[in-house]
Amino acid sequence: MPIYKAPVDDAMFLLNDVFQISRYNNLPGFADVTPDLIGAVLGEAAKLVEEVMQPLNRSGDEEGCTRHDDGSVTTPKGFREAYQQYAEGGWMGISAPAEFGGQGLPETVTTVVNEFMAAANMALTMYPFLTQGAIAAIITHGSAEQKAAYLPKMIEGRWTGTMNLTEPHCGTDLGLLRTKAVKQADGTYKITGTKIFISAGEHDLSENIVHLVLARIEGAPAGIRGTTLFIVPKFLPNADGTPGARNAVTCGSIEEKMGIHGNATCVMNYDGATGFLIAEENRGINAMFTMMNEARLAVGVQGLALSEVAYQNAAAYAKERLQGRALTGPKFPDKPADPIIVHPDVRRMLMAARAFNEGARALVIWTALQGDVEHRSPDEKARQAAADHMGLLTPVIKGVLTDQGFASAVMAQQVYGGSGYISEQGMEQFVRDARITMIYEGTNGIQAMDLVGRKLARDGGRALQAFFNEVQGFIKENGDDAMKPYVAPLGTALGHLQQATMWLMQNALTKPENAGAAATDYMHLFGLTAIGYMWCRMARAAQAKLATGTDERMSAKLITGRFFMGRMLPETAAHLARIQSGAASMMELPAEAF
Amino acid sequence: MPIYKAPVDDAMFLLNDVFQISRYNNLPGFADVTPDLIGAVLGEAAKLVEEVMQPLNRSGDEEGCTRHDDGSVTTPKGFREAYQQYAEGGWMGISAPAEFGGQGLPETVTTVVNEFMAAANMALTMYPFLTQGAIAAIITHGSAEQKAAYLPKMIEGRWTGTMNLTEPHCGTDLGLLRTKAVKQADGTYKITGTKIFISAGEHDLSENIVHLVLARIEGAPAGIRGTTLFIVPKFLPNADGTPGARNAVTCGSIEEKMGIHGNATCVMNYDGATGFLIAEENRGINAMFTMMNEARLAVGVQGLALSEVAYQNAAAYAKERLQGRALTGPKFPDKPADPIIVHPDVRRMLMAARAFNEGARALVIWTALQGDVEHRSPDEKARQAAADHMGLLTPVIKGVLTDQGFASAVMAQQVYGGSGYISEQGMEQFVRDARITMIYEGTNGIQAMDLVGRKLARDGGRALQAFFNEVQGFIKENGDDAMKPYVAPLGTALGHLQQATMWLMQNALTKPENAGAAATDYMHLFGLTAIGYMWCRMARAAQAKLATGTDERMSAKLITGRFFMGRMLPETAAHLARIQSGAASMMELPAEAF
Repeated sequence: MPIYKAPVDDAMFLLNDVFQISRYNNLPGFADVTPDLIGAVLGEAAKLVEEVMQPLNRSGDEEGCTRHDDGSVTTPKGFREAYQQYAEGGWMGISAPAEFGGQGLPETVTTVVNEFMAAANMALTMYPFLTQGAIAAIITHGSAEQKAAYLPKMIEGRWTGTMNLTEPHCGTDLGLLRTKAVKQADGTYKITGTKIFISAGEHDLSENIVHLVLARIEGAPAGIRGTTLFIVPKFLPNADGTPGARNAVTCGSIEEKMGIHGNATCVMNYDGATGFLIAEENRGINAMFTMMNEARLAVGVQGLALSEVAYQNAAAYAKERLQGRALTGPKFPDKPADPIIVHPDVRRMLMAARAFNEGARALVIWTALQGDVEHRSPDEKARQAAADHMGLLTPVIKGVLTDQGFASAVMAQQVYGGSGYISEQGMEQFVRDARITMIYEGTNGIQAMDLVGRKLARDGGRALQAFFNEVQGFIKENGDDAMKPYVAPLGTALGHLQQATMWLMQNALTKPENAGAAATDYMHLFGLTAIGYMWCRMARAAQAKLATGTDERMSAKLITGRFFMGRMLPETAAHLARIQSGAASMMELPAEAF
Repeated sequence: MPIYKAPVDDAMFLLNDVFQISRYNNLPGFADVTPDLIGAVLGEAAKLVEEVMQPLNRSGDEEGCTRHDDGSVTTPKGFREAYQQYAEGGWMGISAPAEFGGQGLPETVTTVVNEFMAAANMALTMYPFLTQGAIAAIITHGSAEQKAAYLPKMIEGRWTGTMNLTEPHCGTDLGLLRTKAVKQADGTYKITGTKIFISAGEHDLSENIVHLVLARIEGAPAGIRGTTLFIVPKFLPNADGTPGARNAVTCGSIEEKMGIHGNATCVMNYDGATGFLIAEENRGINAMFTMMNEARLAVGVQGLALSEVAYQNAAAYAKERLQGRALTGPKFPDKPADPIIVHPDVRRMLMAARAFNEGARALVIWTALQGDVEHRSPDEKARQAAADHMGLLTPVIKGVLTDQGFASAVMAQQVYGGSGYISEQGMEQFVRDARITMIYEGTNGIQAMDLVGRKLARDGGRALQAFFNEVQGFIKENGDDAMKPYVAPLGTALGHLQQATMWLMQNALTKPENAGAAATDYMHLFGLTAIGYMWCRMARAAQAKLATGTDERMSAKLITGRFFMGRMLPETAAHLARIQSGAASMMELPAEAF
């Protein structure tokens, strides 16, 4: 059976030593956030995920979800009880506003907790994660009445939420959507259409399901600027707030799919269902983006989470499995063979996953803190800078952390040899589960286009320039001998990123296909540079701690950082070369030649 | 439903135009191998795989194999009939010696046919592929009686074969194996032990199953030099050659696994089963290597095959699926959206798979021809050079074609967006099926160690030097303007490979961990260079054809080749950088820190 131990210590090191969360204590909700409090919250989360959620991960995959003839859906055994513990523990709303029953803690804490949960049981925790996205949308765009009607129930975990965008003929290109909304005399709308790939669309975990549905009001303009967001609850709330009449929205089927079997991926049929306008007419896509950005970060975190749990299992296996002898001579001559962790090629895979995990976790926490600043700071300039950071880093975190998270899971599976292919070991499930993170909430190609086509040039490149300035400033201030092995490779990577940016400015404005052809490589080049910067900051903090005494975890940090710099960061050169080769060889072939 | 069309034209271009198979007509079996004959054979193979095998691929995955209480195993619906057609078509023995009922055609032809078959239905064709490996071992190591008893039946396809190496506690490290053999008065042996992960170990396709089993004779030395190979048939052959008494070998269970569900992966229990010595006592591993090298090439071909079929489906989907508009303006303004093949990032994925497929196919055919020379040439020098080539390229083909084949399948799945994750589309099956190719017949890490630890230095580096000479000679002779876009990047890649080789000579002899740490990167650096060389040879041949008139396929070749050179080959620099960073950051961490 797979194992999982929440990396509480690593998160504490990042929050306290690297990013010094105490410096943010002027922000609302941060004043009481002491290291002790964070430690207590993360410790409780660790208990829940290790003892309750993780043990259901394999069985949930095997059993999957079942749709019954009446359209109801049963989740795997144990999911209901585990979700109940989650809800009762107040985890849904740890960062939600106190006025609606939340605990008002920093989003950063939620982000850390959500990594633990996704690692322990991704399929199960997708139910609450989608709810958190829906809560965020209602907080931002809902009317006072909508907030009062939905938020307390959702934050309590008694009602869950979903996000309904995709239709059979439209995924990325939401302008094509056909689900229609017809205004009624009482101000509500009748929603009719079919939505597909709806995660957590129907299930038995909550009393009510609050669907946020993108539809087109009769007579609205064609395309994306004619779409509107609606709240379509499974049960229409009564005046007293309890779930009332059953709405005309049903689960038509659940998809057979590669992984996340414990989460019901539904075809949802809206058959004149009652919907309530949220936000403005024909501005649905803007409202949807509130959920989507939140969701994109959460999906990036899922990529990291699956890499972490896969790594932990591979490391444990590599220390136990006896096979072959160390190249430098037997390490355990009394045993029939050495554990495979003595073999450099096994360590190559473990170290690559580990260096990615720790660097990616830093990138997530750094960015989550900016998210809190964006939403809570009283200082407008600080809010703007933080929003710039979020805009720039969101597609990078979604795209890079899921591509690399999947690659890590594949490497961790490889450590197991033939056993990695066998279901009961659980490694192949991590690979299958991780695969979806590269696809949903906007494929990684879409993330790359968002970065290159929109985020780079926005506001005259202000966000990018701020990122360059920060990294360059760090390199300048940390040129001492101890830091050289870290900042020197970072400088090279940053140079590649700047050259790639320059190339785009010179070649993509006149020929946009050069931007499209460069996008994925640029996103990865950016991600590697950003994670490289994270490793420099971690190395600095680790050196500071080591100056006060020995600390094996900090020594390990420095070694892992050197691995990242020597073995993973050099990939930036290949990305730059690919970008500079341009679009020609990609676009020249006529479509019929494929 | 997924589609597949065997790439007959591409194989013909490689056999006739690039490698000019007619130049080998002095070899036995090659005299009659005209382009017409090859075309006819490949055309028949295409019919069989497209009409019979491919339609069973999805259903075979869904249904899987079933083990019954008596230990018998039922394969998915339709597999029996399809296998029968395969056997009746004489495909098992197209390259086997005529004296045992084979057709004596070049192994190269079998290799091409096997790509088609694996692409159409990998799980189904593993049954005959393992048989072909067993046939090769019996041809090389069997006694005259054994050959007479087994080969005709196996070549006819009435009996199938397996390869029994792995035990629960030993996979890579076969020296640990415990299955024991006790000599009987009649010269036979009683075999007792448990073998796991035995592909095609039990099934309902053939009248008899011929297990080749590695075991340890009582009193044999410990370790790999105390292992012996045995023939253990499911039914002991009668004097008249028919299957006789049931032997004490049974399938204890079949594994639940990630993919290749249509192939029974068995736990095989040997309970004093009668075995016949094949080859010499305690030299089992040498005999096993005959099968293993054959199998390793075949597995590399599976990697290519799955990449090809995944690519074909992704290309078809990209031409149909309407979503978004071209960056340069609508290409089909009358349609609601453009087909996604207009998007550079979609083409990036398609072109990467395509450039890999065509380059890998060339590498396979080039190497298969050397295999024929090794086995058939009357010229000892030619045989030796060919054997050198095979030794050097076998691990590269196994490791690189499966790593990259899996990566291609993942990219092809990505082209589908959300639909790629849904089982009925078939794309996720290609990914699951491709995953095993990186693991079985020696994990890719083992291939890399075989290349770096054994093959490079063998005979004073003779094989490697010959490879360098050939590539360098080609670059020198093809420096004209038309070839420059191909040979210039190849020269850079070759330089990186030579620098990496030099680094190993200087750093790995005194510190073998540097070899282990470099192995996987070196293997991929080698593979990229070799495929780059293949692209140069294809470009040269395509240019020659284009000189005689327009030819769209040849124009497409030249574009695809430029894509490989500009977009894929630059990765060699990153591999070199990683190799040169050495083993330190990989080996420094104490095992307990993982």
